[in-house]
Amino acid sequence: MSNKRRVAILGATGAVGQRYIQLLQKHPWFEISVLAASDRSAGKKFKDAVTWLMETELPKEIGEMPITHIDVKSAEQTGDFDLVFTSLPSDLAGPTENEFGAHYPVFSKASVHRMDKDVPLIIPEINPDHIELVKVQQKKRNWKGFITTDPNCGTIGMTLTLKPLMQFGIQQVMVTTMQALSGAGYPGVSAIDIIDNVVPYISGEEEKIESEALKILGSFNGATVDYAKFQLSASCNRVNVKDGHLESIFVKLDKEPPLEKIIDVFTQFKGEPQKLNLPSAPAQPLIVRHEKNRPQPRYDRDAGQGQSVVVGRLRKDPIMTLKYTCLSHNTIRGAAGGGILSAELYVAKGLA
Amino acid sequence: MSNKRRVAILGATGAVGQRYIQLLQKHPWFEISVLAASDRSAGKKFKDAVTWLMETELPKEIGEMPITHIDVKSAEQTGDFDLVFTSLPSDLAGPTENEFGAHYPVFSKASVHRMDKDVPLIIPEINPDHIELVKVQQKKRNWKGFITTDPNCGTIGMTLTLKPLMQFGIQQVMVTTMQALSGAGYPGVSAIDIIDNVVPYISGEEEKIESEALKILGSFNGATVDYAKFQLSASCNRVNVKDGHLESIFVKLDKEPPLEKIIDVFTQFKGEPQKLNLPSAPAQPLIVRHEKNRPQPRYDRDAGQGQSVVVGRLRKDPIMTLKYTCLSHNTIRGAAGGGILSAELYVAKGLA
Amino acid sequence: MSNKRRVAILGATGAVGQRYIQLLQKHPWFEISVLAASDRSAGKKFKDAVTWLMETELPKEIGEMPITHIDVKSAEQTGDFDLVFTSLPSDLAGPTENEFGAHYPVFSKASVHRMDKDVPLIIPEINPDHIELVKVQQKKRNWKGFITTDPNCGTIGMTLTLKPLMQFGIQQVMVTTMQALSGAGYPGVSAIDIIDNVVPYISGEEEKIESEALKILGSFNGATVDYAKFQLSASCNRVNVKDGHLESIFVKLDKEPPLEKIIDVFTQFKGEPQKLNLPSAPAQPLIVRHEKNRPQPRYDRDAGQGQSVVVGRLRKDPIMTLKYTCLSHNTIRGAAGGGILSAELYVAKGLA
Amino acid sequence: MSNKRRVAILGATGAVGQRYIQLLQKHPWFEISVLAASDRSAGKKFKDAVTWLMETELPKEIGEMPITHIDVKSAEQTGDFDLVFTSLPSDLAGPTENEFGAHYPVFSKASVHRMDKDVPLIIPEINPDHIELVKVQQKKRNWKGFITTDPNCGTIGMTLTLKPLMQFGIQQVMVTTMQALSGAGYPGVSAIDIIDNVVPYISGEEEKIESEALKILGSFNGATVDYAKFQLSASCNRVNVKDGHLESIFVKLDKEPPLEKIIDVFTQFKGEPQKLNLPSAPAQPLIVRHEKNRPQPRYDRDAGQGQSVVVGRLRKDPIMTLKYTCLSHNTIRGAAGGGILSAELYVAKGLA
Repeated sequence: MSNKRRVAILGATGAVGQRYIQLLQKHPWFEISVLAASDRSAGKKFKDAVTWLMETELPKEIGEMPITHIDVKSAEQTGDFDLVFTSLPSDLAGPTENEFGAHYPVFSKASVHRMDKDVPLIIPEINPDHIELVKVQQKKRNWKGFITTDPNCGTIGMTLTLKPLMQFGIQQVMVTTMQALSGAGYPGVSAIDIIDNVVPYISGEEEKIESEALKILGSFNGATVDYAKFQLSASCNRVNVKDGHLESIFVKLDKEPPLEKIIDVFTQFKGEPQKLNLPSAPAQPLIVRHEKNRPQPRYDRDAGQGQSVVVGRLRKDPIMTLKYTCLSHNTIRGAAGGGILSAELYVAKGLA
Repeated sequence: MSNKRRVAILGATGAVGQRYIQLLQKHPWFEISVLAASDRSAGKKFKDAVTWLMETELPKEIGEMPITHIDVKSAEQTGDFDLVFTSLPSDLAGPTENEFGAHYPVFSKASVHRMDKDVPLIIPEINPDHIELVKVQQKKRNWKGFITTDPNCGTIGMTLTLKPLMQFGIQQVMVTTMQALSGAGYPGVSAIDIIDNVVPYISGEEEKIESEALKILGSFNGATVDYAKFQLSASCNRVNVKDGHLESIFVKLDKEPPLEKIIDVFTQFKGEPQKLNLPSAPAQPLIVRHEKNRPQPRYDRDAGQGQSVVVGRLRKDPIMTLKYTCLSHNTIRGAAGGGILSAELYVAKGLA
Repeated sequence: MSNKRRVAILGATGAVGQRYIQLLQKHPWFEISVLAASDRSAGKKFKDAVTWLMETELPKEIGEMPITHIDVKSAEQTGDFDLVFTSLPSDLAGPTENEFGAHYPVFSKASVHRMDKDVPLIIPEINPDHIELVKVQQKKRNWKGFITTDPNCGTIGMTLTLKPLMQFGIQQVMVTTMQALSGAGYPGVSAIDIIDNVVPYISGEEEKIESEALKILGSFNGATVDYAKFQLSASCNRVNVKDGHLESIFVKLDKEPPLEKIIDVFTQFKGEPQKLNLPSAPAQPLIVRHEKNRPQPRYDRDAGQGQSVVVGRLRKDPIMTLKYTCLSHNTIRGAAGGGILSAELYVAKGLA
Repeated sequence: MSNKRRVAILGATGAVGQRYIQLLQKHPWFEISVLAASDRSAGKKFKDAVTWLMETELPKEIGEMPITHIDVKSAEQTGDFDLVFTSLPSDLAGPTENEFGAHYPVFSKASVHRMDKDVPLIIPEINPDHIELVKVQQKKRNWKGFITTDPNCGTIGMTLTLKPLMQFGIQQVMVTTMQALSGAGYPGVSAIDIIDNVVPYISGEEEKIESEALKILGSFNGATVDYAKFQLSASCNRVNVKDGHLESIFVKLDKEPPLEKIIDVFTQFKGEPQKLNLPSAPAQPLIVRHEKNRPQPRYDRDAGQGQSVVVGRLRKDPIMTLKYTCLSHNTIRGAAGGGILSAELYVAKGLA
């Protein structure tokens, strides 16, 4: 028997759940033990319940696994597990993650607990020290497990680019997103709504981007997170792209570093995952492209196995200080890949 | 014989030229007399030279018309004409428009002369008084005709929304565009480049948007145009949409009018074309949509026969004052439709 | 008050229901009296229940109309009506159309009753005499009303092209379809499933095409329909097109008429709707295009207000006799437009 | 120094040329020595001349390579090479391939020489013995080198599925293709032409499919190829898909084997490349999918590294014997991948 950590995936049949399954194949530290999904799917074999959306094949042994109901008792009856990845709708995520969190480390992609005071919101390269907040949480809630969260898929790319800019004093950030279809789950957006079209609205997205970045870039004082102080404004759009959120960003800084300096701090940027050499850490969290028309979703979303954020079109802004465009893979770095990287960090730090 | 003004179209086989032809069918004031195009097409019947891109049929009598070379002598040999619409590549537009402008009123969609000191850059609802600048031009150049220009297709929608905001004191404008394929002409963008993709760059577009709006919103002092004083920053993207440029706009104003007031000034906004009841003037230059997910290119581009700009998602901005999204049809209002409306204004004012 | 016939639309909020509403605006013979939809929508105003998908605006007075439940009693309490258009899911259509058909003329787009022995399956240009079958139906069922049906959207274009070929003796027909998204209703196909893709399967579609054409092209003997005798094989695909079903057709005939003769019989083809000058009848049911690369969905789907079928690429086939490509607008001629044309025929013939 | 065979690529900057470069990275037998392209590119570094279209990065050392003119002398001055891959426009391919073929083995993707009597047209799994035809060619032409050709990208998938059906006696084949954008090269299809559209015509494609398959499936008698005798008819369409040609096929056989037997012969089908274990040979040339809605371009084009053909929707045909759908990657198996596999076969057989 392997001594890998055994993983339960809650919401396994969804688009993000499938991405977890895909990315955990041959993972050196984790192996899938339990697949849980809605009552409609529970009781079936995974292959009979899923509309498999990944371009790689559904692994045979995963296809044969039974799907269990999404509660601790059902999950425990199906198999032993050490930690939990969730990708559940918000209404379900609230109580369910509390139920599992009392006993197990829960790595959540749902938005419902992200802004809770005692719940970390983690991008491993940015705020690895925030994971200590789960100790506060465990103490306060008297839990053996915990809940830790990943940011919204639209938050992650932008926030990773902001981290190295913090040293120049960020005052204001304005972002217009062009987000991919897969960010809406499956079936998600109707083809009729998006063919020859852009939809300039994504429910709740702007509020998430505007609030989450400040928590992630804030500082953990041992008891709670002090939010970063700058201002953020977002305008979100859905475009006819399968994967890869593209964002036009304008940033006002205290200082006016030359562009070469910005390119340098982006390119040199590394975080704890790189130092710890975590299995899912990209060599470079930020990749700067120098072509005038990059990044582009189809060409750049898979950079660093989908874990790197690609930055381009860096230029002086006539009003703010800088403008640039960034791209991140919304279901890898922005969802399952980010969740796995976070779990790796907790494991490496002895917290999970 | 009709007493309509006879029109020559230079660049008649291109995407904008075709739109001119389509929109001038049954026009009450104008009739097409001369079609000119590149040497490759000249000498052929129009139907044999064109890849007709309009969803309406190529009018039979237009199809039978001969195509002439793009010079005054060739055009005059083909037929009489009173005014000229051009949609030529920039390198060709420069000398050609000068040649024709010496003798005829030239309504240009090319960028090359837009920022010339003695050349008006017109959006008829915004700066109808600027057309008087052609008198300065005629005097200075000793011309019988003149050159007047329409703005870039990405400039027009935004600038029309800015006009009624001028009363509240515009300080700063930041715009991220999601522009349609037809803005790149034909064949324009390769399908391979845009399928499942966004291209975050359009050559020269940001510079045009950032400069043109200030001229259009400036004031004519009888001799020259004093530019508007606010700051503009643009970030331009190409998306997989046939027609209709969508723009996310953030505006900082001196005052903070309530949103209802903004809606009101947008909705009430009318200009000279509406007062003069010009044939191509939309009843409302600006239409405000109240649904949370509009405007959308496919649904809103044809508002007001493609001559209205549709505004939506109007909301307070946490950094600037306002944010909103606007949409304009880039080959109607943004090109041929705008050119025709401009020509109607000149005619109504006795200048053409 | 008008003396138009009053119409109830069952399934009014669906994609086809909306098309009925759009096409019935300003109809000279019909006016909308009752809108019925699922229990989820019933009780609301139409504008509050619908996701309006038409590119034209939702008519204001329609938006204010109440939605009623889909049963005779509820519908009658909401308003008087003379005839009924249905576009319901098959399971619901079965009993509901029987309930309404006992009292009212029902024009059905559902597949469930199409092949019933005493139910006509009508394409007005092809088999107008089949409408007499409703008399058999009424007698047999002891009904005041009746059910009459329109074919599947994938059947109609092909079958209209086959009608004028019947004179040459059709032996075999093989058709590969490339069908539009709107044929799947709304929300229908997920954008994720069709971007950069084709789906080579549409549930039940091939069976419908293979059977329905033979009934439509059959002959009514006063009591029942004798099916046409030739063989049909279909292969159906979904492509990333909003509207317009494109079909590659191979036909084997008894005779080998020259292509000019085929073009001639297609172009000359007219039916009862043209003779009766019905309001929704296109001047030409079949339009032949001679360009080598037509018909194309985006350019040709609106021919004849969406009621014409466009044929192109007509050529000799090395195995069969002919091959050609045809296109029909699947939600106009293939759904609501076909239903209205059928109702016009019944009215003109005194049967509704 | 390596003892790999050195390769010259003629037409290196084109879409197929780029695919050759991509697929030859780390190839065990071949290494790129010379890149030749049109006069417009010649003299530049490859990276400065190419619009790189592959989703993988342009290899750095390739980017630095000089581009030479497309003639033997220029190529020889640039570097030594042992064999030549060409992907040139037809007009250029004719004389150029003759010039190189006199001295070197030329593996051609152009159509111009495919049907020449002494030129093999090779799909390595189908007709590996036809490669002996180059000896006839060399003798007749008194050449040291030779020209061998790969079929049209639309021919290959279908023909690979037909090979194992030959044992049941093929009488007739009708195919309707839905072909990908990349088949048209770069820039190829304008995005404006294909958005929300299908183009039912590809110049010359039907003729190629109808003729080439018969040569490939024919038999080599030691002097020439006796064509296969069955009949073929094709109808070709361009759809909005990046890569992957999908084909609806109807086949009439002498025998009527049960479907299980067909599945079996497809699945078991292997050819010389599998027996010889050639580096680019897929384990299975034909993969049968049993889901009702496969193959689909986006999911299945990369099967077997893009070298396998995926077959699905196998069913009895009411007119012919069978119908099914197949998919092949048009720029891998259908172009560069097929060319490399062919070269491997020649090398393994001692002919190159």
